[in-house]
Amino acid sequence: MSRPSTPRLSPEIIGDAGLALSRAGEPFGVNAIARHLGVRSSSLYNHVDGMDGIVELMRVRLLATYRVDLPRERWEEYVLAMLRAQRQAYADHPSLVPLLVGKTMTSPTVVEAYDDLATVLADGGFLEEEILSIIAVLDAFAIGFGLDLAAPDDIWQPNEETRTLRRLLESGERGRARADHTFELGVSVLMDSLRARLTNT
Amino acid sequence: MSRPSTPRLSPEIIGDAGLALSRAGEPFGVNAIARHLGVRSSSLYNHVDGMDGIVELMRVRLLATYRVDLPRERWEEYVLAMLRAQRQAYADHPSLVPLLVGKTMTSPTVVEAYDDLATVLADGGFLEEEILSIIAVLDAFAIGFGLDLAAPDDIWQPNEETRTLRRLLESGERGRARADHTFELGVSVLMDSLRARLTNT
Repeated sequence: MSRPSTPRLSPEIIGDAGLALSRAGEPFGVNAIARHLGVRSSSLYNHVDGMDGIVELMRVRLLATYRVDLPRERWEEYVLAMLRAQRQAYADHPSLVPLLVGKTMTSPTVVEAYDDLATVLADGGFLEEEILSIIAVLDAFAIGFGLDLAAPDDIWQPNEETRTLRRLLESGERGRARADHTFELGVSVLMDSLRARLTNT
Repeated sequence: MSRPSTPRLSPEIIGDAGLALSRAGEPFGVNAIARHLGVRSSSLYNHVDGMDGIVELMRVRLLATYRVDLPRERWEEYVLAMLRAQRQAYADHPSLVPLLVGKTMTSPTVVEAYDDLATVLADGGFLEEEILSIIAVLDAFAIGFGLDLAAPDDIWQPNEETRTLRRLLESGERGRARADHTFELGVSVLMDSLRARLTNT
């Protein structure tokens, strides 16, 4: 018998399986992924060293899908595209977010993506000592708005009288329209402020 | 024998138990909470209708701790205090965040807190049709920066050369100082923009 031409397990396969489970709102630990792939948990440990390793594989695969690959001459265009892509990535995998945030990033491809962003901002003229903070603000922003996009159609369901909230809800948008409107407001806030920091330097 | 003077189970006790488990980084589902409280899972179901109900109880108890109770005349002071409190609440319970975000808010005390905020913004002179978006931006902001505060001391550990990132990391702040600096930058961005919206109306 010949060996199968494609391996049943690889870092990519494991990362993708974790993402598929996360998207489906299911647990994505070692055992769940092994079950999903029809292999033993022990086989997984040949490729990955527990949950931290799985999270990093998922981050790498997430990036493979949502990575922004744009000419880097114009920081505004680059940052905007990145925010939109990351927002969607987090919205598609809300339960993964705390794990992604809780773990130091070590994979070369992940580091490279952030190095791209740091370089774009440096080339764009931002003060070097502000760039890491700006990146953290962009990340926090994408995470917050990604989770907002993952919110249910109705954020509140007030059953009692209110002074203001019920009135606003009656005329307000719901669902995707609401989330998109909010994101655009947030983006304009952020980009205005980044432009202002650039003008002041 | 007399009945115990304090009940072993109440919505408050269940919500607080869930929060304690979440703060410890442990699972906080029905079974975990029952085990933590030394009761049967079936007893819990006399007080709460599954995981959605538990999440809402946890939200109510979270609010009891982190609720901002300030004079509401000055929206800036109110919004700032609320952002700081919420950021800390989310940082203390990162794994709870996707669940909090994923569920419609129904509890009167939760609705009341958001109604306070909506009223503060309306009284502060913001356009009524923008207030729900502003609240969503504030929420997204607090969540993103709360999770940033929950991040490890080192966000990246690049093992290979980079064009920009490693250089910035060598001179950059770490840990709480980094997170606080980032939050202050984010807050100034946000508050500047809110003030500008007010001036333009």
